[in-house]
Amino acid sequence: MSALKTVSENKAFGGVQGVYSHASAETKTEMTFAVFVPEHEDGARLPVLWYLSGLTCTHANVMDKGEYRRLASELGLIIICPDTSPRGDAVPDDDAYDMGQGAGFYVDATAEPWAANFRMRSYIERELPALVANEFPADMKRQGIFGHSMGGHGALTIALRNPGRFKSVSAFAPIVSPINCPWGHKALGGYLGADQSTWRDYDTCALIDDGARISDILIDQGTADQFLEEQLKPNLLVAACERVAIPLTLNMREGYDHSYFTISTFMDDHLRWHAERL
Amino acid sequence: MSALKTVSENKAFGGVQGVYSHASAETKTEMTFAVFVPEHEDGARLPVLWYLSGLTCTHANVMDKGEYRRLASELGLIIICPDTSPRGDAVPDDDAYDMGQGAGFYVDATAEPWAANFRMRSYIERELPALVANEFPADMKRQGIFGHSMGGHGALTIALRNPGRFKSVSAFAPIVSPINCPWGHKALGGYLGADQSTWRDYDTCALIDDGARISDILIDQGTADQFLEEQLKPNLLVAACERVAIPLTLNMREGYDHSYFTISTFMDDHLRWHAERL
Repeated sequence: MSALKTVSENKAFGGVQGVYSHASAETKTEMTFAVFVPEHEDGARLPVLWYLSGLTCTHANVMDKGEYRRLASELGLIIICPDTSPRGDAVPDDDAYDMGQGAGFYVDATAEPWAANFRMRSYIERELPALVANEFPADMKRQGIFGHSMGGHGALTIALRNPGRFKSVSAFAPIVSPINCPWGHKALGGYLGADQSTWRDYDTCALIDDGARISDILIDQGTADQFLEEQLKPNLLVAACERVAIPLTLNMREGYDHSYFTISTFMDDHLRWHAERL
Repeated sequence: MSALKTVSENKAFGGVQGVYSHASAETKTEMTFAVFVPEHEDGARLPVLWYLSGLTCTHANVMDKGEYRRLASELGLIIICPDTSPRGDAVPDDDAYDMGQGAGFYVDATAEPWAANFRMRSYIERELPALVANEFPADMKRQGIFGHSMGGHGALTIALRNPGRFKSVSAFAPIVSPINCPWGHKALGGYLGADQSTWRDYDTCALIDDGARISDILIDQGTADQFLEEQLKPNLLVAACERVAIPLTLNMREGYDHSYFTISTFMDDHLRWHAERL
């Protein structure tokens, strides 16, 4: 019997855009995620591209606004879009948009009241991949990962900690160093506590400085992004990559902001980046 | 001084996706609409494609989920997405989703309590085009129109009543004959009263039977659309077009439903249909 519940399935671009839920052992909640499976031959196994979303988002934002299905269908990529945190009345929360539900930051929390449920690192790194491997026509030897903002942080840190699993990584407007921005101090301080040495496992620049490696990185960043200067700071990643010669393609996009209008504009470039490496 | 208020503007695919509002003389309310203007040379005038939305929708549904910007940008088409009715606490409404706010049916209502505000025919046929001509780099000699479901009904009837204005028309899953479906009986009965002779101006098949003509029509219709049999009935339009030799391209799409997953899948085909005629 499948561990999956089907929330919805809609035909799109020849494939199926599904939304599913399951009881997560990591978060101790029902977790919802979206999967697009392109049309494919019986028995075929397709490469898998994970998209991690940003603050306040669910699986639905990129599913509705990301415009990934046309080219994913053409390239034969499965696209998986998890939620950004556990949710529900029984789950701790914070009134702010940047802490608690909708703001899991892809960490395994160790501080209270978050530790019991906020285990998005283990959920994305272990629990959900096992489910996906069982339930979808996925070739788990060919995985890539990307994301937006907090989800760009998630994609970069997860890829750096799991270099054998991912053949490709990219991000739209990622938080590249939580240690060096207000969002990061609030979230990592809350989920992990005040000892910043425990934060380094969740900081792209610190992971690189501490020895983690990846073959190359693509980033698109809008120059009109209201979070660019205070929160995102792509130049910190430029410097970290230069120190250890990781090839970084950073496209600064004139006049583009932090929204899905930007993400959809450059979605095709990112899908092609991953397809070439998968 | 402009009559327009800018609600938002975001750069996308080289152009600008804007949302604007204005005080409408027809509906006596503030009306909101979306406009995508592709990148263009100073002084250029671009062809205009109107998209009318379906029941419950605002300007935002197709803006978020329609996936029109990539190809509209390439083809150089301005895309205009109006709301589906007047809205607000002072505007009459009905608890049902298929009557009142969000369900204007593109008619000029004559029955109470709707007559004062529900003037979506005149709003789309006269008021909004005048505003668009003044405020955007639009070539009003090159206009096309399309829409979904109730908005497909709106596009077809407005095109048939205004053959000089529109060079192209298409629809996704349109209501082709309100006279012959429950949605139509409820809406036209409510907005216009019981005398069905007054409904014929708002019925695509009746307009054709009564002599209205158009050069050709493109329709995409999903076979898994839950409203196909009871409400949409494309075969009525097939018969009406055959009687008077209007070329109709009706694509029945196997397994596709009534959602924006279908619309986005076939959006490119419709944009090319219009671009070839504009």
